[in-house]
Amino acid sequence: MVSFESDYTTGAHPEIIKKLSETNLEQLSGYGSDKYCESAREKICKACGLKEADVEFLAGGTQANAVVISTMLADHEGVIAAETGHVSSHEAGAIEFTGNEVLELPQENGKISPADLERYMAEFYADLNHEHMTFPGMVYLSYPTEYGTLYTKAELEAISGICRSYKLQLFIDGARLGYGLMSKEADLTLPELAALCDVFYIGGTKVGALCGEAVVFTKGNKPKHFITSVKKRGALLAKGRLLGVQFDTLFTDDLYFRISRHAIEMAEKMKAIFLSHGLKIYLDSPTNQQFIVFENSRLEEVSKKVAFSFWEKYDDSHTVVRAATSWSTTEEDLAALEAALE
Amino acid sequence: MVSFESDYTTGAHPEIIKKLSETNLEQLSGYGSDKYCESAREKICKACGLKEADVEFLAGGTQANAVVISTMLADHEGVIAAETGHVSSHEAGAIEFTGNEVLELPQENGKISPADLERYMAEFYADLNHEHMTFPGMVYLSYPTEYGTLYTKAELEAISGICRSYKLQLFIDGARLGYGLMSKEADLTLPELAALCDVFYIGGTKVGALCGEAVVFTKGNKPKHFITSVKKRGALLAKGRLLGVQFDTLFTDDLYFRISRHAIEMAEKMKAIFLSHGLKIYLDSPTNQQFIVFENSRLEEVSKKVAFSFWEKYDDSHTVVRAATSWSTTEEDLAALEAALE
Amino acid sequence: MVSFESDYTTGAHPEIIKKLSETNLEQLSGYGSDKYCESAREKICKACGLKEADVEFLAGGTQANAVVISTMLADHEGVIAAETGHVSSHEAGAIEFTGNEVLELPQENGKISPADLERYMAEFYADLNHEHMTFPGMVYLSYPTEYGTLYTKAELEAISGICRSYKLQLFIDGARLGYGLMSKEADLTLPELAALCDVFYIGGTKVGALCGEAVVFTKGNKPKHFITSVKKRGALLAKGRLLGVQFDTLFTDDLYFRISRHAIEMAEKMKAIFLSHGLKIYLDSPTNQQFIVFENSRLEEVSKKVAFSFWEKYDDSHTVVRAATSWSTTEEDLAALEAALE
Amino acid sequence: MVSFESDYTTGAHPEIIKKLSETNLEQLSGYGSDKYCESAREKICKACGLKEADVEFLAGGTQANAVVISTMLADHEGVIAAETGHVSSHEAGAIEFTGNEVLELPQENGKISPADLERYMAEFYADLNHEHMTFPGMVYLSYPTEYGTLYTKAELEAISGICRSYKLQLFIDGARLGYGLMSKEADLTLPELAALCDVFYIGGTKVGALCGEAVVFTKGNKPKHFITSVKKRGALLAKGRLLGVQFDTLFTDDLYFRISRHAIEMAEKMKAIFLSHGLKIYLDSPTNQQFIVFENSRLEEVSKKVAFSFWEKYDDSHTVVRAATSWSTTEEDLAALEAALE
Repeated sequence: MVSFESDYTTGAHPEIIKKLSETNLEQLSGYGSDKYCESAREKICKACGLKEADVEFLAGGTQANAVVISTMLADHEGVIAAETGHVSSHEAGAIEFTGNEVLELPQENGKISPADLERYMAEFYADLNHEHMTFPGMVYLSYPTEYGTLYTKAELEAISGICRSYKLQLFIDGARLGYGLMSKEADLTLPELAALCDVFYIGGTKVGALCGEAVVFTKGNKPKHFITSVKKRGALLAKGRLLGVQFDTLFTDDLYFRISRHAIEMAEKMKAIFLSHGLKIYLDSPTNQQFIVFENSRLEEVSKKVAFSFWEKYDDSHTVVRAATSWSTTEEDLAALEAALE
Repeated sequence: MVSFESDYTTGAHPEIIKKLSETNLEQLSGYGSDKYCESAREKICKACGLKEADVEFLAGGTQANAVVISTMLADHEGVIAAETGHVSSHEAGAIEFTGNEVLELPQENGKISPADLERYMAEFYADLNHEHMTFPGMVYLSYPTEYGTLYTKAELEAISGICRSYKLQLFIDGARLGYGLMSKEADLTLPELAALCDVFYIGGTKVGALCGEAVVFTKGNKPKHFITSVKKRGALLAKGRLLGVQFDTLFTDDLYFRISRHAIEMAEKMKAIFLSHGLKIYLDSPTNQQFIVFENSRLEEVSKKVAFSFWEKYDDSHTVVRAATSWSTTEEDLAALEAALE
Repeated sequence: MVSFESDYTTGAHPEIIKKLSETNLEQLSGYGSDKYCESAREKICKACGLKEADVEFLAGGTQANAVVISTMLADHEGVIAAETGHVSSHEAGAIEFTGNEVLELPQENGKISPADLERYMAEFYADLNHEHMTFPGMVYLSYPTEYGTLYTKAELEAISGICRSYKLQLFIDGARLGYGLMSKEADLTLPELAALCDVFYIGGTKVGALCGEAVVFTKGNKPKHFITSVKKRGALLAKGRLLGVQFDTLFTDDLYFRISRHAIEMAEKMKAIFLSHGLKIYLDSPTNQQFIVFENSRLEEVSKKVAFSFWEKYDDSHTVVRAATSWSTTEEDLAALEAALE
Repeated sequence: MVSFESDYTTGAHPEIIKKLSETNLEQLSGYGSDKYCESAREKICKACGLKEADVEFLAGGTQANAVVISTMLADHEGVIAAETGHVSSHEAGAIEFTGNEVLELPQENGKISPADLERYMAEFYADLNHEHMTFPGMVYLSYPTEYGTLYTKAELEAISGICRSYKLQLFIDGARLGYGLMSKEADLTLPELAALCDVFYIGGTKVGALCGEAVVFTKGNKPKHFITSVKKRGALLAKGRLLGVQFDTLFTDDLYFRISRHAIEMAEKMKAIFLSHGLKIYLDSPTNQQFIVFENSRLEEVSKKVAFSFWEKYDDSHTVVRAATSWSTTEEDLAALEAALE
């Protein structure tokens, strides 16, 4: 059975496995101080076009969100996010566990609008009792969003501008960053994205690594003694090489972008297959996650051969599923999908 | 240069790399629900001689300590540990970050004594104001300790008995468990250790894995909805297979014990080399970590060829270093050590 | 200048000041163990018609919310509240500070509907990924709400029933409980309210005390070693008598209800004054807080003689203000209001 | 029965009750913004000889400790305290609840020594792994200590100097500050003490108030948006007047010092009574708390007439008790003690 359930069903890109194997017996220092971490940092800074950036590696996306948010907010501050943002609803309260509040904004297709953000900020400071409320201190965005959609460059510039005017930090969750940047609809580059925000991370787990996210502090703004804060949150790996080797490989010869582009091409073909078989697209995503409406009995039949993720109930007789491609999706997988739909 | 700095300077045992490579393209479900995690769980339960145990995998030792302690303590409780326990002093406040207090007991060679524990408990309940203090709710031990030493079976039985009488949970940190159980001085087996405590973990990171610790709840006492609590702490890996494959390999054909035994044999030879070169053993450890006293100028000289960890200042002209072996230590490494000492 | 800004602008009811003075030199034990606390507990249980209840005193409303929620939720759980609930938006993140998430429901006039609650719960358990989300473990309601409105008995019964069927605890914030129960529109009594929930508190700060809220655990469900948890949150007063004497006085000869009824009568007269002077009621509140729409220039004029709280902007030329009565509002205050409006 | 159990067995000094009564019907703004809070702030700054200080009021000592420490430490820092410090052992983990570690130093008679502090700091920075440990960020002292003893001015200067050289903040817990400053052995004044530290508090609860501690940030170093942080910790009283009126009274006509001096005089007479009746002083305290060794059967007899606090077991036949005086101790109380001992 072929699975399109998610972009983390297979292991790592073979280049990564190869590199882990080749470097396995080298004796390296721990906790992210080894030469592969160093090399990966340099390559990432270069790819981002950043001169004064700091890069640190963490194991997963929820962990990265919680560590970044809780080390960068002041005590009286919270983080603004779309009500569908990963930090708002799919992290089991990880941000709250660190003592911080998520301030939710309405969303459309997973995105917040600059207008809503501006209104929220204006109303906050207009409220004479705002000292009794959590101060907004940061904006959290996902690129792509949890619905596979993308902010345009203009939208990001508008949000970034509002952040600057209200002294909000801008944090971009890039758990699937490669799939966003390589989308045909993306109208900005990695350096352009990096220049607009204060901190973001480059997702590895869902883009070809076994685990790992590279957090980029774009402007010399890494919290002081960050490694101690990471340790304090139980998030410091002794064998930091595991993350260093993976990101060093991903940022060698553009592997990160090549495998992202592959997944996007596969996603477009997959979408075409769904459409050509009379299925309805629930939400128009230009990235590697597609959301499809199935009539329930048809879904039951197809699910015997191909696996999708349940997304939500559409109506009494229809269901929305998520179908995702990844670096490892093959033409054979697509052929199997096509066969299953016939 | 050969390094004896720690037991986490090399990657994973080659069998693990091989298995990660072989299973890499298999499509597996996420978050620890895959077949390798399942298989690893079964093998571990069998190795522990436990029928009603639950096994969950986490990425590192500090994380395991923080997750276990914070999910198993009641609100009014704290955890008792040796003042030299890892949770007391080397985790950057990770236990406190979860809102819990570490109650420190004096130690000798890294161990707390049953007598001190009994006295602490008796005095706590004798204090008429104890409702204004953190209640002891758990005892944390390391096996081996942070100094490489081992509790005897009799000591563990005594401590376990005190825990039962005061309704304290007993938690054993087994970050280096294999090196303890395979020590020539160990007088108890894994099933015997498992039977004496409520929860413990089998360290992978320092015993041949790239990362990973297997937490064993010995008696059907896994906290409810544990996976949600793990997620809440940012500690849930999407590709749980990374931990499942590693532990499945470690518990196939006794690999975990074979590589532990190898490290112990290397440690004994290493110790003999130190002694035969006139060096003083600071603290008599029967496990893979040895603590050696060097005259400072000699250390400087030797350090050009072999690397150790600084442990502590001994006196104005001497230093204590830690020298550790691991699954990957070779006869060539020992020969290099011998050459360096001559 | 007369102020209708809030119900906490004056000190305590004179009976309370008198009793504090009379008992001042008595030597009493600390931390809530004195005879006045005991007496207050008994009187409150009796007023609530509860046999197995426990009553504990805390200093303020946000504190009571944070202590109750954080000691009664399990680790994987959060608390459901209206998006306008005090815990959602006006406590500066106090619930999140204790590591717990507030799960927001839509509201109408400050109230959540049984239908929305039922839908939320059904959808939560229908989501196959709900183990990655915070489990709803409690419902938080305010009676009266932050908008001065009241749930009907039928609504509370429906919500209570949903809570029982999903094993949710029901917590009622009664910061202004007296003003709710004494409202002409209230269709339930204190014992009826108490019987429908698991825990609630009787607000003192806003109903005639200098400070203090009486938390009532209705069914022998006070968290174990609650006093230790209160201390841990910095919420335990050494001179617990301050709270005991106040609540003992409030629950002697129905003082709590008498002063609440007085405030309601004053509120009705105040409302009539507003209406008779052509002002518009923004939101129909049957309790001591009234929300009035003023044309801006008129508000500016009136504000020279009478003070209100700014509530929110109505439109470019109008403002909503809050006008509150309390135990201390007098006929003279109302006359001053009337004069100011003319 | 007369009680010497603690200094919080009676209510407030009659002047305070009088003032609360007189101001009771004044309409005042909430949350610490009223004129009595303002007046108290000014008087306290003047008494402390401070120009750029900020004063904020909290309800109790454990709360003050937790709020100050958790708002002033950076994420990677913890607070150093004597192992017998209130924050170390008698606050049920209140500091840890806020996510912060208490780093314990040995003590003598409740005091830490400058030498131990200097050694701790030197060793911390000498440890090459200190980035994996909690950084010391603050020193917590009690004046008087939990044993009633006092640091000399020279000791405080030495500690203050070490703090400056290592960039540690110095925080003095003055829960019983008045009894320290008015002791015959005190060799420093309030302005001198204030000049040596970064933050301290003037205890009200144990020195004549119903509740309340005045936190003094000595050098314009109050954390930004402190009121929001206080609210977030559930520590903000709506009727801030309760604290303002009390401190305004205590700092009018030196009341705070007059009642402290009275307690000291009573304590000296009490001590003389114990000595003249052949009792042994356990620990030489120059403040209002005395620690006396009783033969058990004699204690049982005396306890029928006079109440003390159990402090600790001395040996199998003797017990140490604490006897405390306060602003409200009278000559009659002492006569009753004398009678009971005969």
